[in-house]
Amino acid sequence: MSALAEAAEAMSTMEIAAAAKRASRVLAPLDAAARNAALESMAAALEAEEAALCAVNAEDVAQAEALRGEERLPAATLARLKMDAAKLREMVEQVRSVAALPDPLGRQLDAIELDDEGPQPASSGLYLEKLSVPLGVLAVIFEARPDAVTQIAALAIKSGNAVILKAGREVERTASALVCVLRGALVRAGLPEDAIALVEGRERVAELLGAHEYVDLVIPRGSKALVEYVQANTRIPVLGHAEGVCHIYVDRAVDEVLALSVIDDAKTDYPAACNAVETVLVHAEVAAEFLPRLAERLRSRGVALHGDTVAAAMLGVDTVSDWHVEYGELALSVAIVPSLDAAIEHIHAHGSSHTESILTEDRAAAERFLREVDAASVIHNASTRFADGFRYGFGAEVGISTSKLHARGPVGLEGLTTYKYVLRGQGHVAGDYRGARARAFTHRRLAKA
Amino acid sequence: MSALAEAAEAMSTMEIAAAAKRASRVLAPLDAAARNAALESMAAALEAEEAALCAVNAEDVAQAEALRGEERLPAATLARLKMDAAKLREMVEQVRSVAALPDPLGRQLDAIELDDEGPQPASSGLYLEKLSVPLGVLAVIFEARPDAVTQIAALAIKSGNAVILKAGREVERTASALVCVLRGALVRAGLPEDAIALVEGRERVAELLGAHEYVDLVIPRGSKALVEYVQANTRIPVLGHAEGVCHIYVDRAVDEVLALSVIDDAKTDYPAACNAVETVLVHAEVAAEFLPRLAERLRSRGVALHGDTVAAAMLGVDTVSDWHVEYGELALSVAIVPSLDAAIEHIHAHGSSHTESILTEDRAAAERFLREVDAASVIHNASTRFADGFRYGFGAEVGISTSKLHARGPVGLEGLTTYKYVLRGQGHVAGDYRGARARAFTHRRLAKA
Repeated sequence: MSALAEAAEAMSTMEIAAAAKRASRVLAPLDAAARNAALESMAAALEAEEAALCAVNAEDVAQAEALRGEERLPAATLARLKMDAAKLREMVEQVRSVAALPDPLGRQLDAIELDDEGPQPASSGLYLEKLSVPLGVLAVIFEARPDAVTQIAALAIKSGNAVILKAGREVERTASALVCVLRGALVRAGLPEDAIALVEGRERVAELLGAHEYVDLVIPRGSKALVEYVQANTRIPVLGHAEGVCHIYVDRAVDEVLALSVIDDAKTDYPAACNAVETVLVHAEVAAEFLPRLAERLRSRGVALHGDTVAAAMLGVDTVSDWHVEYGELALSVAIVPSLDAAIEHIHAHGSSHTESILTEDRAAAERFLREVDAASVIHNASTRFADGFRYGFGAEVGISTSKLHARGPVGLEGLTTYKYVLRGQGHVAGDYRGARARAFTHRRLAKA
Repeated sequence: MSALAEAAEAMSTMEIAAAAKRASRVLAPLDAAARNAALESMAAALEAEEAALCAVNAEDVAQAEALRGEERLPAATLARLKMDAAKLREMVEQVRSVAALPDPLGRQLDAIELDDEGPQPASSGLYLEKLSVPLGVLAVIFEARPDAVTQIAALAIKSGNAVILKAGREVERTASALVCVLRGALVRAGLPEDAIALVEGRERVAELLGAHEYVDLVIPRGSKALVEYVQANTRIPVLGHAEGVCHIYVDRAVDEVLALSVIDDAKTDYPAACNAVETVLVHAEVAAEFLPRLAERLRSRGVALHGDTVAAAMLGVDTVSDWHVEYGELALSVAIVPSLDAAIEHIHAHGSSHTESILTEDRAAAERFLREVDAASVIHNASTRFADGFRYGFGAEVGISTSKLHARGPVGLEGLTTYKYVLRGQGHVAGDYRGARARAFTHRRLAKA
């Protein structure tokens, strides 16, 4: 066990969370230059410790590779676990690219003059600003990948938040070493080391979820089971998505060439992604012509099809047993629907409000779909795979949210901020604005600074 | 029991919630004219049923007035319960004033060009919009006041949301009659009646809190105990505040006349309000001069003072036993602090992140306070009582939120909305933007429409 892990072990989860809260109070008022300097200090420290960090990672990898039988890790998991010098340099670049993003804090979201005069003669008015500020303390539970440690830490510091990390156990040595280096870098930049903390062990997760006095947001990254466990076991707001059951509706006025290309991309570009398509709904009027062509195209790409009764018979495939399923692999459900309304109804009944797309040349049908479908992203004539923070131009992606509150859809740094109202007066009192001789509010919206 | 209550009784809470969700799907895509027409229909129906509604209310009032012993209601509660013709006309005016507010839906919150070209020659680009949309279904648990029924219903319809109401039991007959009239008005306006629903009985509250599949937001209005019960017993996001322990910090560079006036207003303007001040922190350098003057001013206004050890001795009053207390009446805690830092620390330790004010002529001290204090509203040289949706110019107040996620501070109609991303393409696929011959995103922010 590392020195950091031992030190953290000696503190209760509540003590760690309380220390993070204290650190967040120091972080919050810092200007962008100070936060960016801390990010550069973090990047430089990771570079300086390259050899040692890679050596620690080799221990995690060796232990993971030695697992046998049921414990054996999939090759993809093992690959993500590895951190060689090249990988570490990529991680360092990522920290620097977060530093280069626009500052998410101190943005003036609104400005309103409440009154242009004050209670004394010649005193000036009462002015309200709405400013973006950090949330406070984030708790992020994530999978076994070293790059997640540095990326999440960088996003937290950039947005003025303290963060408590809980990494997948296969990467615990690496995560601990990385966090130790990052904490040292914070101290050298004049920031409190407790702004980045790490907890280890499954029992710490339950304790973290109970720390609603200190933790302002939990971000669970990982399996549907993890996300649902977190959602069901905490009063702390949760940012994330349990599943992405995304649909593409092929309207009767479809351009078939366009549709084949878009569905191919939405399914095969990265089948494990939450924004990959799981179900294609085809209007009955075009099903007989379109479905066989779709089946041919997708079979050539290695996609297994499943259908409703009619589609399954038409294509000679299995019927779908569960329309809520997120395959996460080269498999796709296909249903025939009698109308746009039926497609929307199917999506509302079985979708996860993540990302839904319509393919049609009928502009009125498209606009109805975009207006009526209740999902974080609704798309016309493009792949569901675009629903992503980088592709949407947010610079960094904190996650994708299927909850409606606070942040919805792909979430950039803005999702790690909240706002506060700042009111500046000259001795203004509320009683003056009431009764027979009440002053009137001006409520004049000002140009944003 | 009214016909409506009997009908609702026959449906399970889950059925009511599911019906509200279906109604919300119909409501969401309506334009502002249709929603405003529904509000006018609601106002007209209330006017038409004036006599009958007032008669029903008289039954609630008679029953409440007949309560004896421990069950006896305070005079203020009884007064709020009453709905005569004049009160009903006020309520109707309030519905019409909600109709007159700007539309909170369909606002373009962002617009980004992801690419200016398409996959085919001469096809056009890929454009992303972020648009405000309704949340879906609201559940509002509120106190025994008839005007809350019509106001909440109006705010819900204005913002395109369905709403499930749970009124205080003393007002159940009135609430049921009002909702019956409002549902009829919805139907006449061509909207589904299930967009406004009422549940009765305490056991329904627990069932509503479990309906996370259908309900998107719970708004508990009422006691701290109610709000905390709701927060601890639901996975549905909660909008509200359990308490408002607001502070005013009197800095050493204070204008004493200004401070006396502001503190008087903040305490006495409406002591039961959550934005009334509960604790005044006074810098040690001015305490000996300022505190006796403050005590004299507040005693003349009937305010009971409590102090820390030194202040209590200085003023001859009791010591404070609990700095977390929200008096909600003419009582105030006073503490002497050695510095601005100590004041901020006290506020973070004992405040509820609701509204905090500094009184000073020292601009640097004021800016530090505004920057460092973590609260929904931070104020310089004005009363905490301004932290209110109407005074902030939001037109309508849904509530005040002390949670940091989604909506913070006074919440207007915007707090009843979320957003969705709308992406329009021409067959764009994500695979084209990756690899050796990748197309580049333009990510150009467009002027908002």
